[in-house]
Amino acid sequence: MSGPMISLTIQHRCGKARAGTLVTAHGEAATPAFMPVGTAGTVKGVTPEQLRGAGVQIVLANTYHLMLRPGAQTVSRLGGVHGVMGWPGPILTDSGGYQVFSLAARRTIDDEGVTFQSHIDGSMVGLTPGRAIETQQLLGADVIMQLDECPPAEAGREQVAAAVRRSADWAVVCKQAWQEADGRSRRLDGQTGLPQALFAIQQGGVHLDLRAQSARRIVELDLPGYAVGGLSVGEDRGAMYEVLDGMDELLPADRPRYLMGVGEPRDILAAVLRGADMFDCVLPTRNGRNAQAFTWQGRMRLRNARWAEDPLPLDQRCDCYTCGHFSRGVLRHLFMASEMLGPTLLTIHNLHFFASFMAAIRRGIAAGDLEAKARQWTDAIYAQADDAGAEG
Amino acid sequence: MSGPMISLTIQHRCGKARAGTLVTAHGEAATPAFMPVGTAGTVKGVTPEQLRGAGVQIVLANTYHLMLRPGAQTVSRLGGVHGVMGWPGPILTDSGGYQVFSLAARRTIDDEGVTFQSHIDGSMVGLTPGRAIETQQLLGADVIMQLDECPPAEAGREQVAAAVRRSADWAVVCKQAWQEADGRSRRLDGQTGLPQALFAIQQGGVHLDLRAQSARRIVELDLPGYAVGGLSVGEDRGAMYEVLDGMDELLPADRPRYLMGVGEPRDILAAVLRGADMFDCVLPTRNGRNAQAFTWQGRMRLRNARWAEDPLPLDQRCDCYTCGHFSRGVLRHLFMASEMLGPTLLTIHNLHFFASFMAAIRRGIAAGDLEAKARQWTDAIYAQADDAGAEG
Repeated sequence: MSGPMISLTIQHRCGKARAGTLVTAHGEAATPAFMPVGTAGTVKGVTPEQLRGAGVQIVLANTYHLMLRPGAQTVSRLGGVHGVMGWPGPILTDSGGYQVFSLAARRTIDDEGVTFQSHIDGSMVGLTPGRAIETQQLLGADVIMQLDECPPAEAGREQVAAAVRRSADWAVVCKQAWQEADGRSRRLDGQTGLPQALFAIQQGGVHLDLRAQSARRIVELDLPGYAVGGLSVGEDRGAMYEVLDGMDELLPADRPRYLMGVGEPRDILAAVLRGADMFDCVLPTRNGRNAQAFTWQGRMRLRNARWAEDPLPLDQRCDCYTCGHFSRGVLRHLFMASEMLGPTLLTIHNLHFFASFMAAIRRGIAAGDLEAKARQWTDAIYAQADDAGAEG
Repeated sequence: MSGPMISLTIQHRCGKARAGTLVTAHGEAATPAFMPVGTAGTVKGVTPEQLRGAGVQIVLANTYHLMLRPGAQTVSRLGGVHGVMGWPGPILTDSGGYQVFSLAARRTIDDEGVTFQSHIDGSMVGLTPGRAIETQQLLGADVIMQLDECPPAEAGREQVAAAVRRSADWAVVCKQAWQEADGRSRRLDGQTGLPQALFAIQQGGVHLDLRAQSARRIVELDLPGYAVGGLSVGEDRGAMYEVLDGMDELLPADRPRYLMGVGEPRDILAAVLRGADMFDCVLPTRNGRNAQAFTWQGRMRLRNARWAEDPLPLDQRCDCYTCGHFSRGVLRHLFMASEMLGPTLLTIHNLHFFASFMAAIRRGIAAGDLEAKARQWTDAIYAQADDAGAEG
């Protein structure tokens, strides 16, 4: 491992679960940590002040979107991704690979990298492992990710095995590019680059032997952190948990473990119990924009007529800005009138829910009773509050 | 005048200009005051906390929109317009008449009132002077407006004279409805109604004799405040100023004077110099959503490519949240990427500009040099910063 660009200090353990502190050049985040997604350099609809107020400590931004618009060089001239987001705290950028596979119109992949058509202006763009790192050096996040190949859930074993091999080969190239820059970001605005931690990504689909093979290849690179990729892409939940069962043994105990694209509170819980430290997902923000609220009593669809004259907050025990100032009836009105404030307020509430959920998980680890709490929470959170007693 | 439901204390005078404090049941607002427009129970894209942070002290909400959706009774059950907006400070509601003329699909008007087709669901709705007041009693704003008829700028003298007569007749009916409720709001959520001040509206287009006639009719009603309506509807700026020249003599000096639908900073200045106290307009919010920023150095169109890599804030002397955290380049990116945060941040900045502009006007009145400053400000504010030196 090259330099102290990031450290994870583990304070509590409870079975395989760990609670600690991730330290970066831009401050700390308590783990297990949930990272809201700031796709194009903004967590949609909320200011950094509102993010902070919701209890968020670390956010993710998408390299794919930022490299296409406004472009990595422009981001760097505007103060890097911290400057663009107006967020002074820890940021992680993905490599761009995942969006190439899910968003780009046409793409060809070979051992060198991937060529794709921009979904914004139709131009052809090349992304190699080296370019993914150079781009992320310009963006300047605290944690950067290797370029990997993430096969779809329906991929056959052969295709998954090829992706494991290719992703591991790319991890080597990425490590080299990262080391050549001394593990630092590159600023075009005259500022000094800051330490960046490179994470490698395990692939292997639901094939446990391929997962083991992938882990061996990347762990030997001795990088600051490791991610589990290629899950939550449509596979069966049981198969995902089986892969996670092996994670603790395959990935080093002293490095952060990031489960990419997860997600659902129950899957976060399951993964924490199996030793994961970091998560990201669009769920709180996307669902918030679509009028769905997470609460400890279940999910609420705010367009439902039953809330039209309800003077109570979404959740009477919630201390977020939204619950402190707006009733269910008002929130429903804002959505029915297509007012921007509806998505903003529900995003704030959902982000606060996820931050509180992670804080409760951390307390459960510290208290040593997370497993007992987990089932209780899951039953409550997955109730549908629209259908039954969420009156108080 | 029935009871102390609102008072205007004038602290400073400078020519016809007055600076003072408007006191309502929900707190105070310094005058001259600008009221941002919260059409459907929200100032679009900003939270009450952001409104307050931008320096806003009093806001306006549209009776037309709220009576159609979610409905005045629902608003009352949800805590009135203060509850719906999440805004504890002073609020003024218009009567709904203006939107009937500008938004409703079909309408017929007679001496009883107006019948129109809802632009939301196509249903036919009736609005009489009595119903306008009853509706505003349910909404519960601190200042409520009489129903009036506002003819378009191209209306002939006959039509304007008829509107003057009809509006004055309606003012009588409105006063009666207001007095019957003891000048108080009506709450369906179990709370006690609070004092509301009724303002009458002067009409008369650009005809000075009709303006005088209109003023005489409404002033004899001895109401808590008076508005000048029917201006800024497309008439020549000089003609508007001529009407305002007569205002100070026609409307009582001890009551607030509200110039409806204005507006442009230069028109606000001109009207303050002629004795106006209150203003409302969608300009800061609508222009903000459309990427246009107001600054003391001129207007900026944030989609302009010249701002793409500009690391400076919109206005280096501005202390709003947006200027404290985001550069011109970032704001441009947010608009180019169609991110909600762009409209939100520019709305915050523009609201802060208008609040600062009004504060500067109040200081100018207190210092006695408003007229000298007015021309200087206007020249600067109406420069086009996109075309020339707004670098710093």
